[in-house]
Amino acid sequence: MARDPRLTRLVSDLPATVPFVGPEAQERERGKRFTARLGANESVFGPSPRAVAAIEAAARDVWMYGDPETHDLRHALAAHHGIEPEAIVIGEGIDGLLGTLARLLVEPGDPVVTSLGAYPTFAYHVRAVGGALTCVPYRDDHEDPDALAAAARENGAKLVYLANPDNPMGTCLSAGTIQTLIEALPDDCLLALDEAYADFAPAGAVPLMDTGEARVIRLRTFSKAHGLAGLRVGYAIGEPILIRAFERIRNHFGVGRLAQAAALAALKDTEWMAHVQGEVAQARDRIAAIAEAVGLTPLPSATNFVAIDCGGDGDRARAVLEGLLSRGIFVRMPGVPPLDRCIRVTAGRPGDLDRFADALTATLAEL
Amino acid sequence: MARDPRLTRLVSDLPATVPFVGPEAQERERGKRFTARLGANESVFGPSPRAVAAIEAAARDVWMYGDPETHDLRHALAAHHGIEPEAIVIGEGIDGLLGTLARLLVEPGDPVVTSLGAYPTFAYHVRAVGGALTCVPYRDDHEDPDALAAAARENGAKLVYLANPDNPMGTCLSAGTIQTLIEALPDDCLLALDEAYADFAPAGAVPLMDTGEARVIRLRTFSKAHGLAGLRVGYAIGEPILIRAFERIRNHFGVGRLAQAAALAALKDTEWMAHVQGEVAQARDRIAAIAEAVGLTPLPSATNFVAIDCGGDGDRARAVLEGLLSRGIFVRMPGVPPLDRCIRVTAGRPGDLDRFADALTATLAEL
Repeated sequence: MARDPRLTRLVSDLPATVPFVGPEAQERERGKRFTARLGANESVFGPSPRAVAAIEAAARDVWMYGDPETHDLRHALAAHHGIEPEAIVIGEGIDGLLGTLARLLVEPGDPVVTSLGAYPTFAYHVRAVGGALTCVPYRDDHEDPDALAAAARENGAKLVYLANPDNPMGTCLSAGTIQTLIEALPDDCLLALDEAYADFAPAGAVPLMDTGEARVIRLRTFSKAHGLAGLRVGYAIGEPILIRAFERIRNHFGVGRLAQAAALAALKDTEWMAHVQGEVAQARDRIAAIAEAVGLTPLPSATNFVAIDCGGDGDRARAVLEGLLSRGIFVRMPGVPPLDRCIRVTAGRPGDLDRFADALTATLAEL
Repeated sequence: MARDPRLTRLVSDLPATVPFVGPEAQERERGKRFTARLGANESVFGPSPRAVAAIEAAARDVWMYGDPETHDLRHALAAHHGIEPEAIVIGEGIDGLLGTLARLLVEPGDPVVTSLGAYPTFAYHVRAVGGALTCVPYRDDHEDPDALAAAARENGAKLVYLANPDNPMGTCLSAGTIQTLIEALPDDCLLALDEAYADFAPAGAVPLMDTGEARVIRLRTFSKAHGLAGLRVGYAIGEPILIRAFERIRNHFGVGRLAQAAALAALKDTEWMAHVQGEVAQARDRIAAIAEAVGLTPLPSATNFVAIDCGGDGDRARAVLEGLLSRGIFVRMPGVPPLDRCIRVTAGRPGDLDRFADALTATLAEL
């Protein structure tokens, strides 16, 4: 492919790949819509009615930029978590915050550690700043904290990534294990602890908030349990000195007025959150039952999706995935062995899961 | 201030300043709301009713991520401008796109040229990647294309920034002058042509679209005439080879579902655009008349704001600004001499401008 000679050397060397192809692109290629959207771990149960009302109420005010300090949302989050507002920065989803974090910490050649098959957007942002990635394997479908810490020490890593609960496998580690990992990291190494799925996890998986702990930055989002993926609001919690550094390079007007209003309303609707958590728990059980009924093995999940072991290698799972996609069911699968023996199915409404069950049965009958 | 030793050298050396303080922060400090919001060149006349309807219609679907390829909006913009969709990339406002552009092109030490007193967010993003900024003075309240081209040649600049129409002065250059500037740039130098205010400019100020022209990238936004500042949608138009490079580092899910839906509806509402243009033209005349009535000098404007020469130096203009702010009128002013002899007032509704006129009269009586 032709290249623009003006690009930086770093950008010139980057692959032209993107972390994810959207379902809309697949729909355009297929020429029709999916009948169940279960591939992106969105909250199919929708946003809080209070968030919808907040969006409608703010729609006419959309000519105004959002508050660049996201004051009201930041203070509400501080109260919610029992921490100081100075320990929180709000950004354009966890994706946006990971990009800013990589730029804050990682110079070309700096060592960074993640897991082989973990969230690809983290690796995407680290490569974009020239970080030297070391990827350690999963162990028993969990990210492996001992291997992460060992690789961090061996390489003198500046930054380590761990999602807990994990995506794409849905498994989780205990708060105690996370704490042990943090303490095993080398000096001046930061753990980026991606807690996008924390709202679905058992209480024991989420460490207590400690904004005096310099070795961890925690990432949360309104895109999952809160059902606001289409508005782009995430936040990071860390030691205020690190959080303050985001001010030096972030896009200050990047979180819009509607996004701030909707997130604030969603945060306050604890009843809706409980409703979604209940629906997700039921849907996880149903997905597991659907898988078992056709002889496949669901993995235990602490998230709003279930990884299903298709009982073979990556080719087998890919064939199942293709069968589902061709039958109108949008799902995804992990990218690397041995995780890629699985497909990943988002918690859906009963009708979504009916269609998934039918398509899975038909696919397996054909294979 | 204490610093985090893990930050990159580049970030450690950046100042802790931000390009703009939002009006909300000033309101919190004052303890009350502004009665006229005329400082951020927002479209006080509001968004298209069709955009509002699109936001309301999409509110319940906000659990879905936006299409990362922004296919529908991109294709609609291509048809609107009579260019190919591959020449357009959509991002989180012009601010977001300028940040990505700086990262694509500028390595530490690379020469970049802008004007002294031009849009500070461009300089902010260039400094964040370590670019070596040269700032040339305005000439007669216009950005000076000859000086920009000369500085670009002298420094071997990779990137030159020009806003046409200009912010903060509101003046504009002709399309022919822009074309002459492009041709005077050194090889492998790119002009970032910020056309945020193009919808308010006389036709002769906007060059024809030429996506085969490798030396310019044009930046447009839905935050100004379209009244969607609170949703963050901008776009860049350039040679497809350069536009494709954005895929390597951009935040693919950064433009949300509501933003895409609202922008698409706004683009189609040409009647509303004509309405806003008419209101802005009337408001500019009114602001000029208000200024002249109290002995100040309005500058001619090709934008949705008017720079008013307060007849002295920066201290004089700052005193006028403070008087207006203390009376509940949110306005801003340019940051450097000689531009800072002016205040900058956004086109407002009749009631906004009544309050502005009263506050201006009272302020001048006091000074």
